[in-house]
Amino acid sequence: MAYTNNEILEIFEASLSQLRVPEEPELLYMPIIYSMSGGGKRLRPVLLLLTTEAFGGSVEEAMPAAVAVEIFHNFTLLHDDIMDNADVRRGKPSVYAKWGGNVALLSGDAMLISAYKYLAQISASVLPRVMNIFTDMALEVCEGQQYDMDFESASTVSVEEYMQMIERKTSALLSGSAMIGATMAGASDEDIKRIYRFATELGLAFQLQDDVLDSYGDTALGKKIGGDILEGKKTYLMVQALSRASEQECEVLCTTHLRKDISNEEKITTIKALYDKYDVKHIAEQQIELRFERALAVLDTLSVGAERTATLVEFARNLMGRKK
Amino acid sequence: MAYTNNEILEIFEASLSQLRVPEEPELLYMPIIYSMSGGGKRLRPVLLLLTTEAFGGSVEEAMPAAVAVEIFHNFTLLHDDIMDNADVRRGKPSVYAKWGGNVALLSGDAMLISAYKYLAQISASVLPRVMNIFTDMALEVCEGQQYDMDFESASTVSVEEYMQMIERKTSALLSGSAMIGATMAGASDEDIKRIYRFATELGLAFQLQDDVLDSYGDTALGKKIGGDILEGKKTYLMVQALSRASEQECEVLCTTHLRKDISNEEKITTIKALYDKYDVKHIAEQQIELRFERALAVLDTLSVGAERTATLVEFARNLMGRKK
Repeated sequence: MAYTNNEILEIFEASLSQLRVPEEPELLYMPIIYSMSGGGKRLRPVLLLLTTEAFGGSVEEAMPAAVAVEIFHNFTLLHDDIMDNADVRRGKPSVYAKWGGNVALLSGDAMLISAYKYLAQISASVLPRVMNIFTDMALEVCEGQQYDMDFESASTVSVEEYMQMIERKTSALLSGSAMIGATMAGASDEDIKRIYRFATELGLAFQLQDDVLDSYGDTALGKKIGGDILEGKKTYLMVQALSRASEQECEVLCTTHLRKDISNEEKITTIKALYDKYDVKHIAEQQIELRFERALAVLDTLSVGAERTATLVEFARNLMGRKK
Repeated sequence: MAYTNNEILEIFEASLSQLRVPEEPELLYMPIIYSMSGGGKRLRPVLLLLTTEAFGGSVEEAMPAAVAVEIFHNFTLLHDDIMDNADVRRGKPSVYAKWGGNVALLSGDAMLISAYKYLAQISASVLPRVMNIFTDMALEVCEGQQYDMDFESASTVSVEEYMQMIERKTSALLSGSAMIGATMAGASDEDIKRIYRFATELGLAFQLQDDVLDSYGDTALGKKIGGDILEGKKTYLMVQALSRASEQECEVLCTTHLRKDISNEEKITTIKALYDKYDVKHIAEQQIELRFERALAVLDTLSVGAERTATLVEFARNLMGRKK
């Protein structure tokens, strides 16, 4: 009987609670513990472990790789927060805000190295292949982050460029985790390619939904709406609107967040009026649906039976906040 | 016939000139090429390749590991320059100065990951062991950097603490390189331990000599004298002086670099008067001699003959700028 998503999460958290780092130098290692114990949904290690299980692999053997991807993910958050000047992470002060940029920088480096330290614990027979997947994934995440920063100052970003950016920044870590899980279970090259497509499409759906929720989310959940708009971020909604709007409207889309003469509320209303004019919320939702369906369809093509992929379907639905 | 130090350097540079990175995103990858082609003495890869050769290993097979340690070294420079606000590196603008902190941060991350990408190319049979040595070495370098930053604001630093710091910050990368070279050649555990001691002692001698030269170097070589003193750095000379000086003199040693009422020249003279009073230059020179001799003595204990370690003796002498 396969583990459920929740069981896998519990097993992972139990392993993670065994994480030990040296006590000194304190400013190097304390932020690692602070960051790793800050919660989060553990999406990537859970996906890795579910995938390995789906292909008949051992959750226990794959655990060091699962810890490695979670440490890597948290490393990216530490360094992203420096680059974004972000003071808050998961409702708590970021490492950057709490200890400063130099500590976040160097602790982040130590985390990235520690991720490889865990990776080195997996079976030598799969280590070279897993290390290559991990490393390519890690470079893609860096590329995605660089493109994201490039887009901030770019006058135009096409929808295609945007999709390529989020495929690196968001999907790569999910698809890499799934591929590592499959590789450790000895899955065939074909299955590894398929599971890569599953996680890539799912990651895209997830990121697009995140973009939509930031502008159209449920305020009843206490989430602030319009953060991306106020930052002038080039989200999927924004690049879709830019690709359809008149020159004059593009000017409005690109500069409204900088205006000092109107309130935040008014800025959000101004931008969303243009989003609505070009129906970009609907366009995004169609794209989300398409990507999500594609992801699930890939699972049916795996060489293992539906009873083995049920937990991956569950993972995909949980990720998108769907019951079915 | 074994390669000389210069031949190994040439072979390494030829390999390094083959280094290829993606063209985009430009701001992620261009700084890597800029940094790697900025020269430097390539001490660590040369030591790695000489060591592998001394133990009968193949320079060609060890090359990816040699590239990995050189990329890692350059990664540390990129991130150190952010932490130190350093605008110049090897006589050229640092990546930090040329492209800014965010680019230096993210490109540095990509370099660290790329180092592992090269490491993954070595033979699978030695990869787990080499990866562990590399990773432990990398963490030690981070620890050394953190201790070095801690020392800046520490009121007292003992000589012992200082030695532990430079063993991490300077020696670890040399000793790790030597151990990797030996491991790839299939050296025995005993020989690996010995070569570790050789490179550790040599690294300490090298760093202490660097400390002495910064305050007592040959101005005829165009080198600026007293940079460490003006920065208030806790060098070997400084911690030795602090361990001997009166309370009042310690105050002078710790605060002179901050004074605004005297010139840089006067600051240097003030500090060096105390160095001279406690003869710390002589103490340092004795320590350098001791470490250097210890390093060479270790080579005689290796299981391979003197004809095989001659190139390592040559490396040690070159490093210390000695003819014999």
